[in-house]
Amino acid sequence: MNIRELLGIELPIIQAPMAGVQGSALAIAVSEAGGLGSLPCAMLSVETLAQELTAIRKSTHKPFNVNFFCHTPPEACVAVESSWRRLLTPYFDEFGLDPNNTSNSASRAPFSHEIADIVEEFRPPVVSFHFGLPSQDLLERVKGWGATVLSSATTIDEAIWLERHGADAVIAQGLEAGGHRGMFLSNDLSTQLGSFALLPQIVQAVKIPVIAAGGIASPTGVAAALALGAQAVQVGTAYLLTDEATTSPLHRKAIKSEASRHTALTNLFSGRPARGIVNRLMLDLGLINELAPPFPLASAAIAPLRSAAESREDFSFSPLWCGQNTLGCLEISAAELTGWLSNGVSSQ
Amino acid sequence: MNIRELLGIELPIIQAPMAGVQGSALAIAVSEAGGLGSLPCAMLSVETLAQELTAIRKSTHKPFNVNFFCHTPPEACVAVESSWRRLLTPYFDEFGLDPNNTSNSASRAPFSHEIADIVEEFRPPVVSFHFGLPSQDLLERVKGWGATVLSSATTIDEAIWLERHGADAVIAQGLEAGGHRGMFLSNDLSTQLGSFALLPQIVQAVKIPVIAAGGIASPTGVAAALALGAQAVQVGTAYLLTDEATTSPLHRKAIKSEASRHTALTNLFSGRPARGIVNRLMLDLGLINELAPPFPLASAAIAPLRSAAESREDFSFSPLWCGQNTLGCLEISAAELTGWLSNGVSSQ
Repeated sequence: MNIRELLGIELPIIQAPMAGVQGSALAIAVSEAGGLGSLPCAMLSVETLAQELTAIRKSTHKPFNVNFFCHTPPEACVAVESSWRRLLTPYFDEFGLDPNNTSNSASRAPFSHEIADIVEEFRPPVVSFHFGLPSQDLLERVKGWGATVLSSATTIDEAIWLERHGADAVIAQGLEAGGHRGMFLSNDLSTQLGSFALLPQIVQAVKIPVIAAGGIASPTGVAAALALGAQAVQVGTAYLLTDEATTSPLHRKAIKSEASRHTALTNLFSGRPARGIVNRLMLDLGLINELAPPFPLASAAIAPLRSAAESREDFSFSPLWCGQNTLGCLEISAAELTGWLSNGVSSQ
Repeated sequence: MNIRELLGIELPIIQAPMAGVQGSALAIAVSEAGGLGSLPCAMLSVETLAQELTAIRKSTHKPFNVNFFCHTPPEACVAVESSWRRLLTPYFDEFGLDPNNTSNSASRAPFSHEIADIVEEFRPPVVSFHFGLPSQDLLERVKGWGATVLSSATTIDEAIWLERHGADAVIAQGLEAGGHRGMFLSNDLSTQLGSFALLPQIVQAVKIPVIAAGGIASPTGVAAALALGAQAVQVGTAYLLTDEATTSPLHRKAIKSEASRHTALTNLFSGRPARGIVNRLMLDLGLINELAPPFPLASAAIAPLRSAAESREDFSFSPLWCGQNTLGCLEISAAELTGWLSNGVSSQ
């Protein structure tokens, strides 16, 4: 089945779920414009999740996507946490903060039956996952709602795995993509492929529809991805400056600056590799530091540094998620951006 | 000017110069088929260089490209060389070889007036460089022959630099590409971009024509690169299994195997990062090892290990250069491959 029929959308444009820089407003705007808007749910409390889903259901009758992480939460380890905080101590000193007086709350929860209880009543037409798929019973529960299930593959092996385990379509996440790598079968960054290599090889390896992601930020990018066999594209970075995104002024400024020419994968902000604009913390500690606690625990100790620095207009400790292609970062409405991206896309 | 006019070619396909796996035969076949064949010259003696150029001039009247490196040769350092050999000692022991009894000849010479003296009489229509451009007087000498000058950019900054310093067209070398990264303004691998991000941003940043390289290995790949603004593509990996390539049987076997799904950038074989199929040496010593002597000195100590292992059908110490996309690695003639790649390309 063609993916536009599968998802019930007019335009082959999926707005990438981006936790921390958007809520329901962006998702609604993109869905209303004929694409597939997405709500990133991994960092939402159950109360906020219900509110956001209510807002979407109230504002649009078009299909939308809700996105969840499905990592296995790690055990907190005192030794790991204390060596991480020791490494960060000079920064706490610099800002006059107490390194031990920080929140320990993990900010990202994996999909669970408790969350499914909330989501269920809203019957989201599309549910996407990052870091693989949830357990078989959870996946069956989601499919039982009639939802179409998507997940990201960063290698050919991951695409084959997702097809075998029940994904209805696979998102080929090229190395260019901003935010967290969806990798789940390996944590070896050398296995990660650029979109030009990843996309056509996944198209050849699986029978389910393939959605291209990573470096797509213009109408020609959309056309190129479709030429390579994608049935739709998922675009994140280009939406970061749209009116409906909640991207912070500091983050917006960094994206518009020369700084955004250099992004890199780092595990410092969450414990898992994610692409963001290179800043002081990344330069100081190295992009991938083995002392960072496992996902998502690394973020807790960074949070107070980030707050203190941001209050001084300093993004040294901020995760400035951003892909390698900022050509499409336009300060327009999400509807306009969606329309622009799909310029030249043939109607079905 | 359109690049096909600039280079005098019918098809927008440049065969990437690949030192060690091809000679004049491949270049001739591609040029005769309407693309631009390339002769990699960095590893050729002056005698062989003259022979190869004679062969090309005798066999085709079509345009062709000669490729040179333009690195600054490093001073050999006894301490660096001995710690490198110390690291490799267990392998020398394994093969019963003497770690000190190896050739010290650097296998890759940069472009020079001595080389230009040989090349000059053959008036190559196109000269491409890797690792930047040669000195201004050398560049002017080459341009004085009427040659069109190309060089590779791996970042937007490098493309702008090449345009300012006299390149006639720039090759946007995406991270997917096999062989040596052409990077020359930075040695930080995190600056390297996938083709989907690199290509359109270079197209926007420079006025000279842009050639796409990295991950292009099918007619749809060519179409996608042209959609993103490239005027031509440079394809390497897909030619590795063609009849005219001199790729070793061991290398061919690796490309056809599952092993080729995992390539990575490594500095172990030459001292500079280059993409090849992951093998034992890379797994053992790490992909980027700081003990590797500067380019091109690292290769001398590896050479005897490579020979000994290859005689046992073992590619543990072989540089198996290969890009991230092997979809186009077909065992056909170079002319057939060139024709296949340009399927669907509109004639001018």
